[in-house]
Amino acid sequence: MMDLGGLQTILGDRLVTSEADRTQHGRNETYYPTTPPDAVAYPETTEEVSAILAHCHAQGIPVTACGAASSLEGQHLAIRGGISLDMSRMARVLSVNAEDLTCEVQPGLTRKRLNEELRDTGLFFPVDPGADASIGGMAATRASGTTAVRYGTMRDNVLALEAVMADGTVIRTGSRARKSSTGYDLTHLLIGSEGTLGIITALTLRLSGIPEAVTAATCRFPSVAAAVDCVILTIQSGLPVARIELLDEVMVRGFNLYSEAGLPELPHLFLEFHGTPAGVAEQAETFAALAADFGAEGIATATKAEDRTKLWTMRHDAHYASAALGPGKRICATDVCVPISRLAGAVVWAQEECVRLDLTSTIVGHVGDGNFHCGICVDPDDMGEMARVEDFTHRLAEKALALGGTVSGEHGIGIGKQGFMDAEHGPAVAYMRAVKTAFDPRGILNPGKLLPEAQ
Amino acid sequence: MMDLGGLQTILGDRLVTSEADRTQHGRNETYYPTTPPDAVAYPETTEEVSAILAHCHAQGIPVTACGAASSLEGQHLAIRGGISLDMSRMARVLSVNAEDLTCEVQPGLTRKRLNEELRDTGLFFPVDPGADASIGGMAATRASGTTAVRYGTMRDNVLALEAVMADGTVIRTGSRARKSSTGYDLTHLLIGSEGTLGIITALTLRLSGIPEAVTAATCRFPSVAAAVDCVILTIQSGLPVARIELLDEVMVRGFNLYSEAGLPELPHLFLEFHGTPAGVAEQAETFAALAADFGAEGIATATKAEDRTKLWTMRHDAHYASAALGPGKRICATDVCVPISRLAGAVVWAQEECVRLDLTSTIVGHVGDGNFHCGICVDPDDMGEMARVEDFTHRLAEKALALGGTVSGEHGIGIGKQGFMDAEHGPAVAYMRAVKTAFDPRGILNPGKLLPEAQ
Ligand SMILES: Cc1cc2nc3c(=O)[nH]c(=O)nc-3n(C[C@H](O)[C@H](O)[C@H](O)COP(=O)(O)OP(=O)(O)OC[C@H]3O[C@@H](n4cnc5c(N)ncnc54)[C@H](O)[C@@H]3O)c2cc1C
Ligand SMILES: Cc1cc2nc3c(=O)[nH]c(=O)nc-3n(C[C@H](O)[C@H](O)[C@H](O)COP(=O)(O)OP(=O)(O)OC[C@H]3O[C@@H](n4cnc5c(N)ncnc54)[C@H](O)[C@@H]3O)c2cc1C
Repeated sequence: MMDLGGLQTILGDRLVTSEADRTQHGRNETYYPTTPPDAVAYPETTEEVSAILAHCHAQGIPVTACGAASSLEGQHLAIRGGISLDMSRMARVLSVNAEDLTCEVQPGLTRKRLNEELRDTGLFFPVDPGADASIGGMAATRASGTTAVRYGTMRDNVLALEAVMADGTVIRTGSRARKSSTGYDLTHLLIGSEGTLGIITALTLRLSGIPEAVTAATCRFPSVAAAVDCVILTIQSGLPVARIELLDEVMVRGFNLYSEAGLPELPHLFLEFHGTPAGVAEQAETFAALAADFGAEGIATATKAEDRTKLWTMRHDAHYASAALGPGKRICATDVCVPISRLAGAVVWAQEECVRLDLTSTIVGHVGDGNFHCGICVDPDDMGEMARVEDFTHRLAEKALALGGTVSGEHGIGIGKQGFMDAEHGPAVAYMRAVKTAFDPRGILNPGKLLPEAQ
Repeated sequence: MMDLGGLQTILGDRLVTSEADRTQHGRNETYYPTTPPDAVAYPETTEEVSAILAHCHAQGIPVTACGAASSLEGQHLAIRGGISLDMSRMARVLSVNAEDLTCEVQPGLTRKRLNEELRDTGLFFPVDPGADASIGGMAATRASGTTAVRYGTMRDNVLALEAVMADGTVIRTGSRARKSSTGYDLTHLLIGSEGTLGIITALTLRLSGIPEAVTAATCRFPSVAAAVDCVILTIQSGLPVARIELLDEVMVRGFNLYSEAGLPELPHLFLEFHGTPAGVAEQAETFAALAADFGAEGIATATKAEDRTKLWTMRHDAHYASAALGPGKRICATDVCVPISRLAGAVVWAQEECVRLDLTSTIVGHVGDGNFHCGICVDPDDMGEMARVEDFTHRLAEKALALGGTVSGEHGIGIGKQGFMDAEHGPAVAYMRAVKTAFDPRGILNPGKLLPEAQ
C-alpha cells in the first residue's frame, strides 16, 4: 500500500490529492488518454526531493517528474500511479556568470522566463522547443528547437547537473569548465533519460551572446522537394544559418487559419541569420542566390525584433495551427530525424503516405538537423482513423531507421515509441537496461517509460 | 592462469609475446615507468575483437586497448598485466558521406591520416590533439585540441559508435542523424571511458567544411596576465575564433630551442580565423583592436597554407619543445580546465608556484576553453624533484577544483589522477562504479584505471 502519510510529513499541504490537481497532471498535449497520478508533490528544495525519493524508494512508490507537461510521447504521465513530482516551485535562476557565459537554474524554470531574466546580460539560452517547456523537462527529453542547427540541442548546452538519484542520494555531474575528461559522462547519461534515472534539481547551462545583428527571412518553393533540396545545399555549403525551418503547404494552410498569416499555400522556409551586420548581410545574400536555383520566390526579410517575434511565435504555434485543420480532433505529433542527404526522400514519402491513408497532416521541421514532424489530426475515438495513424507513425519510424536515422530527433520515447527501441538500438538496449537497474533497482523512477518491457 | 592458447587460436601470429613488442606497448610519452603487457594482440576485425573479449571475459584476462600510445596519464599501460589490444590494424576509413558531413572510420586510424584521406572531399575532421593520436584513443580519452574553441571536442564530433563490450557483445550506439532523443546516451558514456567500459571498433564522425578562408595570427604580450585577459575578452565578445592558444615565455624559449622559432621571449597568443574572406578579415581586425588594449605587439598574420602549417606544427610540438628545456629529463604534462573568467588567476598562480618550487615548466593552453597544461621537466630518479612535481600537480588540481573547474580538460584520469576523482565528483563516483560493474562485472577492461580503488 502506498504510504502517503510519510510524504505528507515531508511536504505538508504541498502533497495534494485533489481531483483537479491530479487530473491536471494526467493531461497531455497529444492524444494519450488522461492518466491522473495518485497524488501531486510540490517540492521546493533539493533536500525535499531527496527526502521524497528516499521515502518512495523505501516504500516502492512510483515517482514521475513533471515540468511543464508539454512532452509529446506521454513522458510525464504517471502510468503506474504513484506521485507526480511537480517541479514548478523550483524555478529560480540560482546564479548568472556572465563572464563565463554560464548560469545555474532550477529545473522548473521555463525557457521564456529564463530568457526574460537574462535580458539585461546581453546573453540568451538558445534552445527553444515550441512549448514554453521547463529547463529540467527539456534536459530530460534532450529537447531541441529551431536554433539547434546553429547552437545545438540540450545535449550541447548543459554543462553540469545536480540530480537526486532513486534512493535520495544527491549527486553533481560536470562543472562550470567548458570541457572535461574526468570520468564517465553522467551529465549526458541523465540528459534524455526522461526522469527514469534521476531527478534533475539544478542545471548549469551554457549561454550565448545575443548576436549583434539578426535577420529573419522567408520564402516559398514550388514543391517540398525543392525546398528540402535547398536546405540540404545550404547546410552542405557551410552557411552558418541560425534557423532554417520547413513548413509544407498543409502547415501553411494551418497558419493561415490559426494565425491569419496570409501566406501563399506553398511550401515555405523560415530562416534566421545571426552575426555582425556585415556577416548577416553576406549570409542572407548567399542564401538568396542559392535558393533562387531551387525556384524560391517571394524572399522577404525582417530585421525588426517585433516582426521576427511575430514570425517565430507563429512557427512555435505549429502544433495548435495543425489542430486548426481538424476542428475537434487531437494532434498526434510524430518526430523523426534522418541524415540530411536523405531528408527530401523522407519528407516526400511522408506526404504521399498521408495522402494515401487519407490523413490530414502538417509537416514542419528543424530541417537543418534532418529533423521533421508530422502533426496528424486524429479523433482518438475513431478506431479506423487511429489505426491508420498508428500504421503511418510506425512506418515513418521504420523509414527513418532504414535511411540511417532515428525514430525521434527530439520528442523522445515515453510510451509512444518504446516499440522501436529494439529496432533502433538492438543489443545496446540491454546495456541501457543495465544502467537503469544499477541506478534504480526498485524501478520507482517513471516506471513503464523509455525502455521496452523486458520479454 | 592466463590461457594465451585460446587467444592464439583466434589470432594466430597476431598474438605476439616478443620482448620488443611488449616493451614498446609498455612505453609512454610521460614519466611513468615502462610497463609491458604479457602479450600484444593485433585484431583486424570487430569479430576478432569480440572473440578476444569473450575469451578474456571467460578467463579473467585483463584487456587494455592501445591506439597510438600517446596518452599522458598512463591510460594505455597494462598495469595489471594481460593483453595490450593494439588497434593499429583496424585503421580504415569505412565510408565517407560527404553530403551528410559524416564518415565512419575504424578506431586505429590516426587523425592525420584521416584528414589526408578526406582531402579531396573539401571536408576535414577538426579535433587535433598535439600527437597524431588514433581516433579510437581520442574518443576514449574525450580528447580535444587547438580547434575545440570553435569545433568542440570528441564529445561534440562523434555521432555514433560500434563497440565490443566486456563479454564480447557487439553494440551500436547513436546513428548518422545529427541528433536523437531515443534512450540513454551510450555514445557519450563510452566517450571518455578510457577503455574501461568497452572497446570501440568503429566511429561515425561529424566532419566540417574546410573554410573558404583561413588566417593565422600571432602576437606577444607584456605579461601572461595581459595575454589571458585578452583571451577572456575575445571569448566573451563572441568572436568566433577557430584557435586561440597561449604560450608563456618559458614555452616560447622552448620553441626557440626546439624549432628555432626566433620569437621574442614573451608570452604569445597564436590564433586562427575561419570563414569567408570578408568574415576572416573582419575577425582579424576586431581581434587586433581588442588585443591592442592589452598591450599586444608584433601582430603578424599568415594566410599561406605553408606558413600556417609551420606555425601549428611548432605548436603541436610543445611537448617536445618543453623537453628541450631540460635535456635528459622527462616531461610531466599536467592539464586542468577552469571557467574562463578564472583563467588568468589560475595561470599566474601556476607560474608563480613553479618558480617557488624551483621547477622548470612551460605553460601552454587551449585557453579559449579555459584549458591549459604545464609541461614540467622532471628526472624520475630525482626523488626530491619528483616530490616537488607531485606537490605542484596536486595543488594545481585542487586549485582548478576550487575555481569551479576540473582536474583534466582533456588528458583524462588514467593512473595519474584517480586520487582526485572523489574530490571532483563526490557521491557521483559511486554511480560511475555502478556503471562499470554493470558493464564489466569481471573487471577485465583496463583494470586499475580511471575509477579510484574502492576503499
Ligand atoms: C506546441 C509544442 C511544441 C513543441 N515543440 C518542440 C520542439 O520544437 N522541440 C522539442 O524538443 N520538443 C518540442 N515539444 C515537446 C516538449 O516541449 C519537450 O519534450 C519538452 O522538453 C518537455 O519539457 P516539459 O517541461 O514540458 O517536460 P514534461 O513534459 O513535464 O516532462 C517530460 C519528461 O521529463 C521528465 N522530467 C521533467 N522534469 C524533470 C526533472 N527535473 N528531472 C528529471 N526528469 C524530469 C518527466 O518525467 C518526463 O519524462 C513541443 C511540445 C508542444 C506541446
Ligand atoms: C605531444 C603530445 C601532445 C598532446 N596533445 C594533446 C592535446 O592537445 N589534447 C588532448 O586531448 N590530448 C593530447 N595529448 C594526449 C593524447 O594524444 C590523447 O590522450 C589521445 O587522445 C590519446 O590517443 P591514443 O590513440 O594515443 O590513445 P592511447 O594512448 O593508445 O590510449 C588512450 C586510452 O584510450 C584507450 N583506447 C585506445 N583505443 C581504444 C579503443 N579503440 N576502444 C576503447 N578504448 C581505447 C586506451 O585503453 C587508453 O585507456 C597529447 C599527447 C602528446 C604525446
